[in-house]
Amino acid sequence: SQNVPITVASGDGIGPEIMDATLRVIKAAGARIDIEEIEVGEKVYLRGISAGIEPSAWESLSRTKVFLKAPITTPQGGGYKSLNVAVRTAFSLYANVRPCVAYHPFVDTKHPGMDVVIVRENEEDLYSGIEYQQTPNMMESLKLISRPGSERIIRYAFEYARSNNRKKVTCFMKDNIMKQSDGLFHKVFDEIAAEYPDIENEAWIVDIGAAKLADTPEAFDVVVMPNLYGDILSDVAAQIAGSVGLAGSANIGEGCAMFEAIHGSAPRRAGQNLANPSGLLLGAVLMLVHINQPEVATAVHNAWLRTLEDGIHTYDIYADGVSKQKVGTREFADA
Amino acid sequence: SQNVPITVASGDGIGPEIMDATLRVIKAAGARIDIEEIEVGEKVYLRGISAGIEPSAWESLSRTKVFLKAPITTPQGGGYKSLNVAVRTAFSLYANVRPCVAYHPFVDTKHPGMDVVIVRENEEDLYSGIEYQQTPNMMESLKLISRPGSERIIRYAFEYARSNNRKKVTCFMKDNIMKQSDGLFHKVFDEIAAEYPDIENEAWIVDIGAAKLADTPEAFDVVVMPNLYGDILSDVAAQIAGSVGLAGSANIGEGCAMFEAIHGSAPRRAGQNLANPSGLLLGAVLMLVHINQPEVATAVHNAWLRTLEDGIHTYDIYADGVSKQKVGTREFADA
Ligand SMILES: CC(C)[C@H](C(=O)O)[C@@H](O)C(=O)O
Ligand SMILES: CC(C)[C@H](C(=O)O)[C@@H](O)C(=O)O
Repeated sequence: SQNVPITVASGDGIGPEIMDATLRVIKAAGARIDIEEIEVGEKVYLRGISAGIEPSAWESLSRTKVFLKAPITTPQGGGYKSLNVAVRTAFSLYANVRPCVAYHPFVDTKHPGMDVVIVRENEEDLYSGIEYQQTPNMMESLKLISRPGSERIIRYAFEYARSNNRKKVTCFMKDNIMKQSDGLFHKVFDEIAAEYPDIENEAWIVDIGAAKLADTPEAFDVVVMPNLYGDILSDVAAQIAGSVGLAGSANIGEGCAMFEAIHGSAPRRAGQNLANPSGLLLGAVLMLVHINQPEVATAVHNAWLRTLEDGIHTYDIYADGVSKQKVGTREFADA
Repeated sequence: SQNVPITVASGDGIGPEIMDATLRVIKAAGARIDIEEIEVGEKVYLRGISAGIEPSAWESLSRTKVFLKAPITTPQGGGYKSLNVAVRTAFSLYANVRPCVAYHPFVDTKHPGMDVVIVRENEEDLYSGIEYQQTPNMMESLKLISRPGSERIIRYAFEYARSNNRKKVTCFMKDNIMKQSDGLFHKVFDEIAAEYPDIENEAWIVDIGAAKLADTPEAFDVVVMPNLYGDILSDVAAQIAGSVGLAGSANIGEGCAMFEAIHGSAPRRAGQNLANPSGLLLGAVLMLVHINQPEVATAVHNAWLRTLEDGIHTYDIYADGVSKQKVGTREFADA
């Protein structure tokens, strides 16, 4: 069958190394893709482009509608906008799906039974980027929650649960304080949950919900929440499952999708053949399912699991008594 | 020496039981206090008072300036304001101090070395309670961060570190997205940190910071952050240290202070002599230090530790192989 065109950005810091590893692995597994490389991130920012992405790159994304993105570095200081947020917003990538899975006993974890999928709303909330300087001493940021935005992500979570054979969807929010905004999210959750009687549902105030998630993640299945809570708690969940370095993420819109690792560009580790490519590789697995090459996705995922099981581990997940061999990015990809 | 007048509210749900236990213990240890009881919470809300506290109760608080508060229940639905937030705001209780300590090997925990103090800003952020319904389908909540508010809480964190012999203050915020509001918080942190060269400092974006805290809490000491992050992450920290049921909290202002447990009123456990009074009791220990009866505070704290060490545990922290005797609220207090 025909190759699928995808847009690829190798990013900054450890980005090029983990992208190289990822592409080598998925090509070896038979991915039928045509790669369009674009440059995004630090160098583009420093050319004065505020979101770190040039018109020609936008054009590629609009055409392929599939984006595999390595982490980038956003320079410090004013005037720079997050590229991630720019792409999520421009293509209305409303659902950020982040599976956080323990690979016990092959990766060290305190939560061996953990298998949680965080479904994070990806456009609204404090990510609107609307901020006011009321006085030099008083800053105001806007948190926006809409009914259509909430409906869309919550329905996505229930559909995801249904088609992935998951039993329960949990909602996190804080409607005892944000009665309007989080109140709306909670209300919409209850409405939509009622349409899925086959799937269990529950809602927690985010403080105690987060405490339970960090302590007893085995009690959760699919968890849906507004953007900022999802940002924080997907990092928490991924880390306690094993490492933020092991989590990939899909940003899904109506027509377009972006796949990435959940971690950052780790500039201090760059160029040393140290980084764990697993997050981006698992992002690519989600991409392969999305572009309808599930057999390639499965092949990659199994090869990856097998490598973990063989104890061939990068430094970040290396643990005495669990790991067998400490390897670099390249050797991990080879394995 | 003279008795100190304090205002006490027994609250809702498990409140009366844990307050009874707490007052019995601190009196037995020689606390020199005169108690003024006020009624707050559910019954008062249901009389139509929006913040669940009547004028006579405000009057008592204004006079004693010390408040020991059990958890309360806020009825569901519109029109009710959080009593906690009302009191924090009315008396400008800007610092919420929440020690989260592991009591290994006496209480089961995956983080035996943990000893973290969360210093949470307690007046600003999304707790302003300012929300707009733009259209029936679009809600807006305001996040406010001010320079004076940030200076005050950050300075408090460094002073706390200095006077409690702590080595490091960490700041959590998200200034890659909220460049103005969290950006101001970060900037003020850097400014004030420079005034305390004897104390280590570091700042993390809250997503990865929270992941580290949940995974490696031993790496943190004092952690200062805006209100909402502090709400969520103090529950996380307390829970992974052992239980949210073991954490007390001090809400400190210029002239007034409120002491409480960090957990809620757990209506389903009420009236069964089940609840763990430790959170409120440790809140009372913080109060005894505040009213300058440190020797009583120490006596209570030691007796409490000894009870834990003896394996005399309430249901919530009962663990096979660690606990010796499962007891109720009253028996725990007796012990
Ligand atoms: C880089 C940053 C803007 C981004 C976010 O906050 O969403 C990242 O933390 C993530 O979770 O993908
Ligand atoms: C009850 C609620 C308003 C309160 C808060 O959000 O501050 C509670 O969760 C806490 O942490 O003290």
